[in-house]
Amino acid sequence: MKINGKAYRTIWLAPDGWSVEIIDQTRLPHEFAVVPLKSAEDAARAILTMQVRGAPLIGATAAYGLAMAIREDASDEAVDQAITFLAAQRPTAINLRWALEEMRRAVQNLSREERLAAAYRRAAEICDEDVETCRLIGVHGRKLIEEIEALKGGARVEVLTHCNAGWLACVDWGTATSPIYQAHDRGVPLHVWVDETRPRNQGAALTAYELGSHGVPHTIVVDNAGGHLMQHGKVDLVIVGTDRVAPNGDVANKIGTYLKALAAHDNGVPFYVALPHSTIDWTLDEGLSIPIEERSADEVLKMPGRLPDGRVVTVEIAAPGSPAGNPAFDVTPARLVTGFITERGVCAATREGLLSLYPERAPK
Amino acid sequence: MKINGKAYRTIWLAPDGWSVEIIDQTRLPHEFAVVPLKSAEDAARAILTMQVRGAPLIGATAAYGLAMAIREDASDEAVDQAITFLAAQRPTAINLRWALEEMRRAVQNLSREERLAAAYRRAAEICDEDVETCRLIGVHGRKLIEEIEALKGGARVEVLTHCNAGWLACVDWGTATSPIYQAHDRGVPLHVWVDETRPRNQGAALTAYELGSHGVPHTIVVDNAGGHLMQHGKVDLVIVGTDRVAPNGDVANKIGTYLKALAAHDNGVPFYVALPHSTIDWTLDEGLSIPIEERSADEVLKMPGRLPDGRVVTVEIAAPGSPAGNPAFDVTPARLVTGFITERGVCAATREGLLSLYPERAPK
Repeated sequence: MKINGKAYRTIWLAPDGWSVEIIDQTRLPHEFAVVPLKSAEDAARAILTMQVRGAPLIGATAAYGLAMAIREDASDEAVDQAITFLAAQRPTAINLRWALEEMRRAVQNLSREERLAAAYRRAAEICDEDVETCRLIGVHGRKLIEEIEALKGGARVEVLTHCNAGWLACVDWGTATSPIYQAHDRGVPLHVWVDETRPRNQGAALTAYELGSHGVPHTIVVDNAGGHLMQHGKVDLVIVGTDRVAPNGDVANKIGTYLKALAAHDNGVPFYVALPHSTIDWTLDEGLSIPIEERSADEVLKMPGRLPDGRVVTVEIAAPGSPAGNPAFDVTPARLVTGFITERGVCAATREGLLSLYPERAPK
Repeated sequence: MKINGKAYRTIWLAPDGWSVEIIDQTRLPHEFAVVPLKSAEDAARAILTMQVRGAPLIGATAAYGLAMAIREDASDEAVDQAITFLAAQRPTAINLRWALEEMRRAVQNLSREERLAAAYRRAAEICDEDVETCRLIGVHGRKLIEEIEALKGGARVEVLTHCNAGWLACVDWGTATSPIYQAHDRGVPLHVWVDETRPRNQGAALTAYELGSHGVPHTIVVDNAGGHLMQHGKVDLVIVGTDRVAPNGDVANKIGTYLKALAAHDNGVPFYVALPHSTIDWTLDEGLSIPIEERSADEVLKMPGRLPDGRVVTVEIAAPGSPAGNPAFDVTPARLVTGFITERGVCAATREGLLSLYPERAPK
């Protein structure tokens, strides 16, 4: 998507043909900075520190990280070690493991000499596939928005989203935002309530940034506000992304998603989750077993921001000496999810629903 | 309660015998500053800018504001005008109007000469009554905590609270925190999850500050986290305050309270609301008609904090140019409230429950 009129992806091969470049998302919305990643260690650090974040983009970055690891050592042991190392950086998003297993399959039966080219080829494919997958999520999802527009007689459709499941979380388009961008581009009048998404403010910092860059009308609200907005009929539709979906329809996503799903359910507001196939963890029975990452208390106690002179500083915001807890994700039970929007279409948040779109996953 | 070992109330008569002093709560937790209020205008500004906040403390401040107005002009017109002016500063909390009507009753049938002494007397009584009311809320509420301790065989009781319904919101003790302080002081092992409470961070800034000052174990979490904590059995009890209660049991309180009530209900966690009698608006039928204050977008888009060198600055945290909405309260339907804790005891969040404690309010 575009920033200042120029089209970007979130990750791309550098002119040298082997390193990659990313947008440093920890510095948005205050600074737009492109950062090079020149090794698997660089890729791991970018994932851990959330210079890149969002389930699909984490997967894409890990894929290139593995390609860079193979560039240094293409042995079986080195490949195994790099996959284990990269996979350990974030525990919740399944796409990280998915992308690394894709990479393993792409190289494991090849000679050491063949592995390098194959790894870069598969990493590039993973990126291109993600773009096409996200585009298709938008094609299916925008119909939901258009249906609401029709029901409202052409009045503005009010969408609420949590965190950033935008193009900055993917390679392009986004998952939750792809229906929004595509409906907007087709002239559907819409407005997005953007949850701030504490503690890292991905909504206020990233989603508002990318919606604003694309010209989509939006309003930032604190995470506390969604229930009130729904009570007062100000939300027609919730669309969020996800870091991992269990086959029974349970959804792990950014902390606070569960609260919005409860409010949507209580107020009869449709609650959709947009996801690529790679986010479904077919090995699970249900979602409460998904490991929830506990992140640093500093993310709660400190906040980066711009001073009036433009300098970016980090300030402490809480009572000195108070401890903080920081669970980064929660699990929304399938019973609260109206449906899934995937690259293959829209389905119920149930095993039957998912199997109707992915019949190849049915038990043999 | 104590700050650095010294006992404070949140508002007190200055040594001059007519002006009052308050703790400037907009500067907590970064600075502890006492500020003089020398006129009704000062009191109004302190309420509007939230140097004082919390339903009971707003009422107490308005009472002294009216006394200072009468000191300048004790005529009927001046009294009416000052009441209208002070009541207009914040729309949601009913205690503001309640305290001003108490003041009106205290002076209206007196001569101009008698009004000044009567006004200061009633303002002091309102403060003293609030302290005793809050103390009694704690006496009744701590039994709920002790019952859970007994059920858990003496294991630590986990309480979650939202916003600051602490002594800083009242004159002393607090509403939601009074049961916590009194249980803690009697040796009941407990720990408090403190919701950060965006956008003004009253939890992280004020509740954590006062619990820490009193030595109560606590952990700050973002507003998004409560549902996850409840899903995982980490919350035994929720206690919040309220700005206005409708006689049917609906509860207006800080934005986000409704989301926590939904999560408590979904997970079978008791959800109690602590309130003094002055917070009940007997004129209402239900809560959704309570006016919800919309505050400045700057509260969402900017945040005060401490730099490493101790200086306090305000930083912009969101994408430049993005608008923000800022509804300050929401209404939790009575069906989600386990009970009320008042100075007269604990009751169901229903008309019958409230009338069982306040039979004098029953229709004649």
